[in-house]
Amino acid sequence: MLSAGKNRTLTQVGAGTPMGGFLRRYWHPVAALSEFEKSAIKPVRILGEDLVVYRDLSGTVGLIARHCRHRAADLAYGYVEQSGLRCHYHGWTYDEKGHCIAQPFEEKFDPQGRLKKRIRTAAYPVQEKAGLLWAYLGPQPAPLLPDWEPFSWKNGFVQIVFAEVPCNWLQAQENSIDPVHFEWMHENWSLPNGFFLGEHFEWRVPVDDENMLSVTWSFIRVPKEAEPYEQKSIPAWTAPIRDPQTGRWITSHVINQDIVAWVGQGRIADRTKENLGASDRGISLLRKQLFKDLSAVASGKDPKGLIRDAKANRQVELPNIGRKLYTEGMTLAQYREHPFWSRLLEDFRWHYGQPEEVRREFREAMGLEAESSSR
Amino acid sequence: MLSAGKNRTLTQVGAGTPMGGFLRRYWHPVAALSEFEKSAIKPVRILGEDLVVYRDLSGTVGLIARHCRHRAADLAYGYVEQSGLRCHYHGWTYDEKGHCIAQPFEEKFDPQGRLKKRIRTAAYPVQEKAGLLWAYLGPQPAPLLPDWEPFSWKNGFVQIVFAEVPCNWLQAQENSIDPVHFEWMHENWSLPNGFFLGEHFEWRVPVDDENMLSVTWSFIRVPKEAEPYEQKSIPAWTAPIRDPQTGRWITSHVINQDIVAWVGQGRIADRTKENLGASDRGISLLRKQLFKDLSAVASGKDPKGLIRDAKANRQVELPNIGRKLYTEGMTLAQYREHPFWSRLLEDFRWHYGQPEEVRREFREAMGLEAESSSR
Amino acid sequence: MLSAGKNRTLTQVGAGTPMGGFLRRYWHPVAALSEFEKSAIKPVRILGEDLVVYRDLSGTVGLIARHCRHRAADLAYGYVEQSGLRCHYHGWTYDEKGHCIAQPFEEKFDPQGRLKKRIRTAAYPVQEKAGLLWAYLGPQPAPLLPDWEPFSWKNGFVQIVFAEVPCNWLQAQENSIDPVHFEWMHENWSLPNGFFLGEHFEWRVPVDDENMLSVTWSFIRVPKEAEPYEQKSIPAWTAPIRDPQTGRWITSHVINQDIVAWVGQGRIADRTKENLGASDRGISLLRKQLFKDLSAVASGKDPKGLIRDAKANRQVELPNIGRKLYTEGMTLAQYREHPFWSRLLEDFRWHYGQPEEVRREFREAMGLEAESSSR
Repeated sequence: MLSAGKNRTLTQVGAGTPMGGFLRRYWHPVAALSEFEKSAIKPVRILGEDLVVYRDLSGTVGLIARHCRHRAADLAYGYVEQSGLRCHYHGWTYDEKGHCIAQPFEEKFDPQGRLKKRIRTAAYPVQEKAGLLWAYLGPQPAPLLPDWEPFSWKNGFVQIVFAEVPCNWLQAQENSIDPVHFEWMHENWSLPNGFFLGEHFEWRVPVDDENMLSVTWSFIRVPKEAEPYEQKSIPAWTAPIRDPQTGRWITSHVINQDIVAWVGQGRIADRTKENLGASDRGISLLRKQLFKDLSAVASGKDPKGLIRDAKANRQVELPNIGRKLYTEGMTLAQYREHPFWSRLLEDFRWHYGQPEEVRREFREAMGLEAESSSR
Repeated sequence: MLSAGKNRTLTQVGAGTPMGGFLRRYWHPVAALSEFEKSAIKPVRILGEDLVVYRDLSGTVGLIARHCRHRAADLAYGYVEQSGLRCHYHGWTYDEKGHCIAQPFEEKFDPQGRLKKRIRTAAYPVQEKAGLLWAYLGPQPAPLLPDWEPFSWKNGFVQIVFAEVPCNWLQAQENSIDPVHFEWMHENWSLPNGFFLGEHFEWRVPVDDENMLSVTWSFIRVPKEAEPYEQKSIPAWTAPIRDPQTGRWITSHVINQDIVAWVGQGRIADRTKENLGASDRGISLLRKQLFKDLSAVASGKDPKGLIRDAKANRQVELPNIGRKLYTEGMTLAQYREHPFWSRLLEDFRWHYGQPEEVRREFREAMGLEAESSSR
Repeated sequence: MLSAGKNRTLTQVGAGTPMGGFLRRYWHPVAALSEFEKSAIKPVRILGEDLVVYRDLSGTVGLIARHCRHRAADLAYGYVEQSGLRCHYHGWTYDEKGHCIAQPFEEKFDPQGRLKKRIRTAAYPVQEKAGLLWAYLGPQPAPLLPDWEPFSWKNGFVQIVFAEVPCNWLQAQENSIDPVHFEWMHENWSLPNGFFLGEHFEWRVPVDDENMLSVTWSFIRVPKEAEPYEQKSIPAWTAPIRDPQTGRWITSHVINQDIVAWVGQGRIADRTKENLGASDRGISLLRKQLFKDLSAVASGKDPKGLIRDAKANRQVELPNIGRKLYTEGMTLAQYREHPFWSRLLEDFRWHYGQPEEVRREFREAMGLEAESSSR
């Protein structure tokens, strides 16, 4: 049980709050690279801030404030240029550092560009890794974007799944450390708002106090027969979590079932009313660690798990009992005999709603399409 | 016209409010038995409290708080056991008295079950009658669940219709006592938030201050040719009240038309602005009686209409000018000549949206299907 | 940049606010005459007031408060009578002056109609012109409803398009005076919340502080071959502005693109954060003029642009560089060669969503249907 004050401390994510400050010390996945094949601009809301991710025509990716500094028009409806993002309203253009680099009408009156030089908009660093675009909203110098080992595994079919979940991120994170998952989490504090389960990551990116973006990165090793396999583009899709007919949460898939636990606690779980027992010590440990990290940040130190040494940031291993499979592979026959993996051949069991084209790409990568068409 | 304070007194239904206390002295229909043929758990909100009704595998019906006492997971997504309702999150299981009877993970650490013994959740008595499940949220000893006479009528096709209406319950109740219905209501105060019209009941179960659940129990006597008729299961359905295309309230059926009057007054009617005339004395009488009942409850007495004498609770008659028909019956030919009842053969005139399967069951009970298939 | 207080002054439209008082000095289009061919009653919300426009069986048009003075039932579900609008609840009937002219139940108890005589509901003048119904919510004497010259143009196909836009009206008006439109606006202050572009009008009728009704009146001259053309009824339709699939604003048509600029600034633009430059002097001039008008109204004077002299109110000209075309016409061949007008033959470029029947009427009027069917 927590006091109302401590519950607020653990759940507020805005700029200027203790937890908001802590979470800003980490890199967060906010988009997938492949999303930009269809549309060059994606509006995102992270840690209570309204932003847009864009990729300009030169390939530079930027993450800047969503509303134009001129008269607050919505840059999600802007246009990408050779360099930068142009507002659809009066053409003010920004680069990825937040500089205003064009003001077409104003330049006629003010050829020296005095107003232009004065304007700065919020801009944050973005890096690409493992098919994801990662954002850092904290103070400089930024830590390194972790190079988790699975990101280098070969011969894998990777997919990225987003889900917009209407509750505070901590409910998901506490779910990961409860009795079932306690042992693993105990030895692995590297991901304050993430979770690694042997072949998939889940990150719980705080959107604001009452919403989060669940990001799943799933690796499935192709059978030995299909090796060598190189994935051209990592597909990304958004999973629905509610049945539009009944209004009920979807419960058919693994992460969907978890989501019911998270959102069932309300937008922000009222931890003043919980009844924790001896089996909930993982929860207590997690909170204790978070409060310790908040103290560290308050006193100007790094919280746990940041990587600042480039040499240490090479294929960083995470606890993983199934590592042999992901690094060595198995045959299709072995897949079919495997109690757990055999099911993955039939259905993407993590999330409901896999689009047909992703399913087809997966089956092709696994050599299942060829097989069925040759029958 | 009422003062703002009196309007609040008459419309607040939460625990601890005068009207909330008064309404808690009565049994309220909250679900239909037949709903549990499809799904064992139904979330309900009554008098501002979030609850679930469930029927466990032994057939026991319970009504308990919707959120688990452990960490507030949503029991609407739980599982019914041989005895009790199990939370989907960590398996805490409750019986219909609100006792926690299992805590799987915790029991490993605490085999004596100390935490389990300490936990109690809100639990309320439920009784079944006339195909409905009735809840009592008030203090003990509870009054008797009224055994209204129509519940014992023979040879009837009964159906139960729910409608979720976005306004305070009192607007519906005041509608029933206005000029058109005044005479009847005057002699019949037994149903503080209900209404009986000769062959159907309507109850206006307060969901919270701004919403109510309209529950209709409709009896239609089968023609003499179809006697004897015994209904196996009383169907229940939920009537839509708004046209999704236009956003307008549906006005094609009788109770739908009433609903337009209720919701048209706003979520909570502003009675400080009304202009009552001599024709509105029913309204004034109703409010006077309600204030009298609030005083009775405040001074520890029973409000009007409670039944506590089992001998008096046998097929309790209500004023009914059409009683002869419902107890004696008529032939199909007489039905067809009847100015009012003839229309019921064609359409369920009370509520829009009767499902096709209910219509078919009705026509079979009435002997109309046999007739049309023999043509 | 404005102070928060000045921003509030410019954007609040309710009764009793300075801007609400100013806007109430003008006539506002609130409905189209042809809407009343299908339905006799239209609920509208203007300047923060909930009202209904109705046309009774004698043809009189009224604009009165939406909620009945008896017990607040919704008159949008009432019935029009030979004279006046009758409430569906207890039959109270109102005329276009706001008098209560019938109280069926009450009259039995109070044959002298004392209550009836006492009741007055809000009622505002309405006038018809150019296929539109115009409302005046200000103090008497009302100014004249302007007789803009285009309303008298001959041989035109006119259509009226409504769009419900979820932002304050001033964002639309400021959009019209920004760099692109500045020159025109400078010489033409006649329309405080409207805009004339040579062949179409746009009015931005304030619904409340956070919503507006965009009303477009579009004139297209038929080709000389189709003259003389007389339009029997001016069609009116409501344009969707958001794609229901993606949730994104529609951007395919001209006014839709403008709407993205308006709503992108938020419900009420935060003008304390804007960065105006030399190219934004139109914005400053507009605000200056508005503040001047607010002062005029506060000191009991007329704001700019009211017409009170009937002689001056005859086909009032507005600046119009394309006036020759609209008054003299051109041939179909000339249309097809015209860089701008040729496109209008293919698509109604102002608003997305033109209904098929309006498109057919337009093509018939233009002589395009005959042409295509003769091929």
